[in-house]
Amino acid sequence: MENINYFFSPKSVAVIGASREKGKVGYAIFSDLLDKYAGEVIPVNPNATEILGRPCYPDITKVPKDVDLAVISVPAKFVPQVIRGCRKKKVRAVIIISAGFGEIGNKNLEHKILKEKGNMRIVGPNCLGIFDSTSGVDTLFLPEDKLKRPKPGNIAFITQSGAVGSVVLDMLSSEGYGMSKFISYGNGIDLNEIDFLEYLGNDDKTGVICLYIEGTKDGRSLMKTAKKVVKKKPILVLKAGRTHEGTAAVSSHTGSLAGQDEVYDAAFRQAGMIRVDDVRDMFDYAEALSSQPPAKGHNILIVTNGGGFGVVATDEAIHEGLKLPQLADETVKELQKCLPPYVKVHNPLDLGGDADSKRYAAALEIAGSDKNIDAVLCIVLFQTVSLNPEVVDVVAEFAKKSGKPIVTCSAGGEYVQKLMHKLEERGVPVFNSPYMAVKALWCLAKYGEILKKAQ
Amino acid sequence: MENINYFFSPKSVAVIGASREKGKVGYAIFSDLLDKYAGEVIPVNPNATEILGRPCYPDITKVPKDVDLAVISVPAKFVPQVIRGCRKKKVRAVIIISAGFGEIGNKNLEHKILKEKGNMRIVGPNCLGIFDSTSGVDTLFLPEDKLKRPKPGNIAFITQSGAVGSVVLDMLSSEGYGMSKFISYGNGIDLNEIDFLEYLGNDDKTGVICLYIEGTKDGRSLMKTAKKVVKKKPILVLKAGRTHEGTAAVSSHTGSLAGQDEVYDAAFRQAGMIRVDDVRDMFDYAEALSSQPPAKGHNILIVTNGGGFGVVATDEAIHEGLKLPQLADETVKELQKCLPPYVKVHNPLDLGGDADSKRYAAALEIAGSDKNIDAVLCIVLFQTVSLNPEVVDVVAEFAKKSGKPIVTCSAGGEYVQKLMHKLEERGVPVFNSPYMAVKALWCLAKYGEILKKAQ
Repeated sequence: MENINYFFSPKSVAVIGASREKGKVGYAIFSDLLDKYAGEVIPVNPNATEILGRPCYPDITKVPKDVDLAVISVPAKFVPQVIRGCRKKKVRAVIIISAGFGEIGNKNLEHKILKEKGNMRIVGPNCLGIFDSTSGVDTLFLPEDKLKRPKPGNIAFITQSGAVGSVVLDMLSSEGYGMSKFISYGNGIDLNEIDFLEYLGNDDKTGVICLYIEGTKDGRSLMKTAKKVVKKKPILVLKAGRTHEGTAAVSSHTGSLAGQDEVYDAAFRQAGMIRVDDVRDMFDYAEALSSQPPAKGHNILIVTNGGGFGVVATDEAIHEGLKLPQLADETVKELQKCLPPYVKVHNPLDLGGDADSKRYAAALEIAGSDKNIDAVLCIVLFQTVSLNPEVVDVVAEFAKKSGKPIVTCSAGGEYVQKLMHKLEERGVPVFNSPYMAVKALWCLAKYGEILKKAQ
Repeated sequence: MENINYFFSPKSVAVIGASREKGKVGYAIFSDLLDKYAGEVIPVNPNATEILGRPCYPDITKVPKDVDLAVISVPAKFVPQVIRGCRKKKVRAVIIISAGFGEIGNKNLEHKILKEKGNMRIVGPNCLGIFDSTSGVDTLFLPEDKLKRPKPGNIAFITQSGAVGSVVLDMLSSEGYGMSKFISYGNGIDLNEIDFLEYLGNDDKTGVICLYIEGTKDGRSLMKTAKKVVKKKPILVLKAGRTHEGTAAVSSHTGSLAGQDEVYDAAFRQAGMIRVDDVRDMFDYAEALSSQPPAKGHNILIVTNGGGFGVVATDEAIHEGLKLPQLADETVKELQKCLPPYVKVHNPLDLGGDADSKRYAAALEIAGSDKNIDAVLCIVLFQTVSLNPEVVDVVAEFAKKSGKPIVTCSAGGEYVQKLMHKLEERGVPVFNSPYMAVKALWCLAKYGEILKKAQ
């Protein structure tokens, strides 16, 4: 554990293969670290004496200071000797960005690295490395204008595939969600998903863990670790290679053994991990889990100003195993006092096409606190004449105070998207289809169930 | 048919209940028509002599010119006498925007209207009415800054629920897709979904028909009409009220009888309509069908620069009943000539994290024209270092020339979203998850199958 800390908050970082040439990976990593990381950043490159104003050393062993973390971006064949140097220098942690190892059949080169590593811990090779939103460690080597970095937040991502991880990171950032840590471990010759799962389980900054894997080297210990972690925070897992064809594609992609999907499926279930099938689901579920408490049960309330959307959401909720209970008698009575007589009070609660913010406030406050209700799906069609942007405050206030999970559904063009962003900024997840909103609620109920079982 | 034309391209429109007060429905409709509609627009209101510079008449019978279309926005109880006036005036077509009829139990008022209508055709009551992107007829009464209007295009939408329809319209507009006609028919006391299905089947401007219904008054004739239309263009249908709970919600929403879902399901299948379960699916499928030809079979090629995305898409394609055939020997040979040796040539075709536009061009041109391939799923992770925006041209050019359907998958923040929009503007559908891209391809293959059966 202690060693793993050096990846996220080292006192000093050396970039081996740092470059002055814009467009090179060694430039992107070095300049990014200089910009964002508060500690010492040291370039290492035999062909330069200075890079971006910092003295450059020909060799890691020539650096006149202690180095906690080394980031390596040199051609694959040079990596073993660089690792030897790092060990001599007593570097604590190493990220090998370089590709050209096991993933193209060069297993031998990986063995050489392992022989040289000593007590050092390694992330990679063939990876994007680490992003830590608090310390500023960032080895992603994709410029900010192409790939946005998320603000600090409580979602962590461990990914075997750099591409999948970086796309989710980019999506989360652009929708205003925050991340704690991002780990792309590539071939995982030393540290892998299991080590980081355990680490993130104990990380105060992390509230939700997302995991993308194509295979694992040790299913038993992955499950054992996961079982411990899910008592503290939810784990979402996207395991690619479900079908015969997908499995074949995996073996060509990372050389992992994808294994029998049924076995994975049962194991994930037993360990209390929540399995997703798609990148978008992973992203949507993480949004919901990062801001909302788990639901205590499967009973939901649907509130809407679009009857059709309410019906579609109801169909989908039932289909996903959620329930729409009757509202308690006293709830119905109280609602009838506040709502116009033509609004029929039941669940789903259709407030009418002429609903305003006040009607939403009454519905959420009264029906939302009904003892039969575990969670709320609030559909808001911002386009209607009678609804003004104030409804954002109404929903956000309810989310803050109620103690029950809420997700919202809205969709439309620019005007609506602005208001959707506002809701998200205030910690209320918004989905652009009833289907995704219902699935997110399902996920919150699922995690509630997992927690109950784990007790 | 001829009468229905008056709704979309009348020579003159009277707005009964036109108002000078901003924020009123009667103002929004009148001023919108003045702005966009090229023909004559006449305000009718007993309390004004002039509105926005146009002479206003106290009564439709007092209008000194022929009126093709009357749009009625007056309180429900006055509607029957207004209809009587319209008949006297020999108005051809009437849209009743006003609510307060069958949907709240006032069936009687609807009977009164039908008694007065004579030969006139009626859309509504309780509806948004009509939007025609070519003629400029627009009775949607939601200001443009809240609800964008789509540019001219080939997607048509018939909807029983105004809210569902307007949200889809807003989403299509904001993603740059075009629509031909939009019809919200509300309670449908005269014209309903069947009439408009038949009409749009013969409409040159319409290439894809979307239909949202909660029930139908005449299942048999809906199916008969659909069967004819699907030979010419695809019909997507979202029928809400699938579950017991959803059905109950429908009867409270529009008073429709939702009926047994299995019966609907079988009928849609027999008629060759494509059923969707969610608003988002409706929207995504329409995007694909509006720009891409149907697929001749279920054999797809997946091209990607993110291995993980390729695997996820492969799993999902197989799950949806699509196939990933081997590429022909000559295709493999030719590809190997153009791609670096470490790119393994098979399907899914992972071009590598360092793929550039040229690799995409080679892959699409060579593998895309393989005789075993019916359709292409092109995954483009724009974030990578080596890929520049030129790849948009490569994909768009392929889409234009190949004759085979293509859909793309991409996701990310601002930078990526701009490029996604560019692709869409050039007629290539883009989805932000492998799942939706695969479903869109499935839909293109489904319509290919429906066409074959219909021959």
